Amino acid sequence: MSKQEITLTPVSGASCCTPISDAALDSAGAADGAAVFRALADPVRLRLLSMITSAGDEICVCDLTPQFEVSGPTISHHLKVLREAGLVDCERRGTWVYYWPVPERLQWISTLLAVPETALTR
Amino acid sequence: MSKQEITLTPVSGASCCTPISDAALDSAGAADGAAVFRALADPVRLRLLSMITSAGDEICVCDLTPQFEVSGPTISHHLKVLREAGLVDCERRGTWVYYWPVPERLQWISTLLAVPETALTR
Repeated sequence: MSKQEITLTPVSGASCCTPISDAALDSAGAADGAAVFRALADPVRLRLLSMITSAGDEICVCDLTPQFEVSGPTISHHLKVLREAGLVDCERRGTWVYYWPVPERLQWISTLLAVPETALTR
Repeated sequence: MSKQEITLTPVSGASCCTPISDAALDSAGAADGAAVFRALADPVRLRLLSMITSAGDEICVCDLTPQFEVSGPTISHHLKVLREAGLVDCERRGTWVYYWPVPERLQWISTLLAVPETALTR
């Protein structure tokens, strides 16, 4: 089998808002979702994402790095993975890079796993 | 550093319903979340989970396996990973094993990634 490139579906795509409790994913949707979950499947990346999303607006990489016991380049790598998964975006201003969350992408994943209220009370 | 065992937080735990947009995860919460996302970070497992959650009530493994081009033992392995992550549960009845989703666990992950409506419209 040849190496397969995973292309992320735009967040405005048709598959955006159908929870898996409503309809089974097709192969393309599953590949897309799994790629995003891979980005989230690391404790450092998940903490970075939570720090970026809870920061209010945006956060400087200079405020993220001191919170971890890993090196600056390692943090940069993890931030790149989050950015490539479409979960955060960033901009360089002078010396520092500033990060903010992409709410539509988080909402896409949250909706994918949403379950109806009735399922929680049965 | 010694090898760290990851223990999943019970779904009724205090960390259950705080979205990362409200508060940054601590190390324990991040390890717990990342372990669940690792279970979701595979296209076959994500399709299996979506088939189980959209089945209505429960689904026989005999109805899951024919949908994939991988072997029965491989499907069994993926189902075991989903079960160990607390996302599905199962019961053997005679020849077959029947699977159903654990809605509280899905809701836990969905809530973790939820973003406020206001963040989507800014």
